[in-house]
Amino acid sequence: MTTTIVSSASKEVKIGFDQPFVIIGERINPTGRKILAEEMKAGDFSRVEADAIAQVEAGAHMLDVNAGIPLADEPALLAQAIQLVQSITDVPISIDSSIIEALERGLSVYNGKALVNSVTGEDEVLERVLPLVARHGAAVVAISNDETGISEDPDERFLVAKKIVERAADYGIDRSDVVVDPLVMPIGAINTAGRQVMHVVKRLRDELQVNTTCGASNVSFGLPNRNGINSAFLTMAIGAGLTSAITSPLHPEVMQAVRGADVMMGHDPDCTNWIKAYREPVTDASGAAMGARGDRPRRRRRA
Amino acid sequence: MTTTIVSSASKEVKIGFDQPFVIIGERINPTGRKILAEEMKAGDFSRVEADAIAQVEAGAHMLDVNAGIPLADEPALLAQAIQLVQSITDVPISIDSSIIEALERGLSVYNGKALVNSVTGEDEVLERVLPLVARHGAAVVAISNDETGISEDPDERFLVAKKIVERAADYGIDRSDVVVDPLVMPIGAINTAGRQVMHVVKRLRDELQVNTTCGASNVSFGLPNRNGINSAFLTMAIGAGLTSAITSPLHPEVMQAVRGADVMMGHDPDCTNWIKAYREPVTDASGAAMGARGDRPRRRRRA
Repeated sequence: MTTTIVSSASKEVKIGFDQPFVIIGERINPTGRKILAEEMKAGDFSRVEADAIAQVEAGAHMLDVNAGIPLADEPALLAQAIQLVQSITDVPISIDSSIIEALERGLSVYNGKALVNSVTGEDEVLERVLPLVARHGAAVVAISNDETGISEDPDERFLVAKKIVERAADYGIDRSDVVVDPLVMPIGAINTAGRQVMHVVKRLRDELQVNTTCGASNVSFGLPNRNGINSAFLTMAIGAGLTSAITSPLHPEVMQAVRGADVMMGHDPDCTNWIKAYREPVTDASGAAMGARGDRPRRRRRA
Repeated sequence: MTTTIVSSASKEVKIGFDQPFVIIGERINPTGRKILAEEMKAGDFSRVEADAIAQVEAGAHMLDVNAGIPLADEPALLAQAIQLVQSITDVPISIDSSIIEALERGLSVYNGKALVNSVTGEDEVLERVLPLVARHGAAVVAISNDETGISEDPDERFLVAKKIVERAADYGIDRSDVVVDPLVMPIGAINTAGRQVMHVVKRLRDELQVNTTCGASNVSFGLPNRNGINSAFLTMAIGAGLTSAITSPLHPEVMQAVRGADVMMGHDPDCTNWIKAYREPVTDASGAAMGARGDRPRRRRRA
């Protein structure tokens, strides 16, 4: 029962096999968001603020913060964004950058135990990122690709994850502080992408005993009704053991899938969260609270 | 790779580990439907006809037909309903009754290879239903309860299923013609109901190598937003290996969950069915077909 604990100054979030699924809000990321990129570069963080608040209100348990803008001072922007987000929300942050100096600056201003996003299996990257993670007592997202790229064989990706977990241990980072991203392929291109993820997630959980995360919306790339595919993917992956995802909590359909998956996994005792989210409005004239409408269960009688 | 084949006069449906999920439409059942019961008793089958057509149009691959009406001539009504449904649709039928004479009459008028719904693990029931199934070369739904009722222990329910499969073999019925219902409990009352089903379905698939079905909507009894719970349940159960369900195809949300699960399992090659169901309408001025709108996949860059 591996549990990854991350925190802000005032709040702890547990990612774990026996915990409700953790949604890491993906919105604060200028990649592919031209207006956000321009604003951040010009020092206007109003959209970052709005995105932070909206995602937490929609149910995000953590927020990913990325400031990857070409020709900008990414370390300074990332630090500024993190401080802003920490000043207006209390959820832990996933510090997301491909630039080691940005990760370092982000960690130096961060209040709590952060999730560093990310390290890959490339030796050079491992040697630069892992000491940083260890020094700050952070947790880290391990992406299962290496010098050879992303293997199409999920078992090869498992081996890369294993290597990262072992290397992290050399730096004193426990496996409970490594959250593996098994890499989700677009299922419109690779028909087995869903089964691959379920297979690797099971192995990561049973054999490597690590928590897992992924960029969930990749799976639906190029398909219509992406939220429908994303919902199916998340539900099934949670059933296989996925414990968190970097995704947008702003789609009610996706949040419903995650809440439903929590119920199915037994991680929403008495369905308290489900009932809170979907309780039907009181409609009787007296204003008295009405119970949830429920048809009788279908009677399966004996032959 | 167990495959259960059922058929009408002109159409074959395969329930199997490597097949798209099979929806058995549950609507033609007077239990809890007072108006339908009264109409059928009075010889008015117009609603049966409408339900049959609506369910097939909504995507049902098979139809369950039940005529269990108190103080009515159930064998005659069931035979009449089956003949009517077979005259207006081409999908195979699940002949659903707790009365042996009704199953017998239903089978005698049925055109094709039917699914008999159901047999339990009670010795007396096994001895009456299995010879009938064998004589008609039908398949049968095996419900995993016996003289002692429904065990709360899913492994006990597995043992009941195993007993039924073994007993069926004594009558010359192959395991591929036994579709086990692991019994789904309301998750609002039993917090582990979801995990129980996944656990039993996996064992039924791996150890007993049988196909599975269930009355899916029982799981959400008493909860708000039942379709949301049913969707999560079906998606996760399909991930665990469930191969069919007796449920209503009239909820678009539930059908979407099943179609999404087929995609995730790799049972919708090239996502053909998904794209057909959810392709966005052509909106450009020229009227030329437009591709599905797809955002760029979230870029996971190397640290």
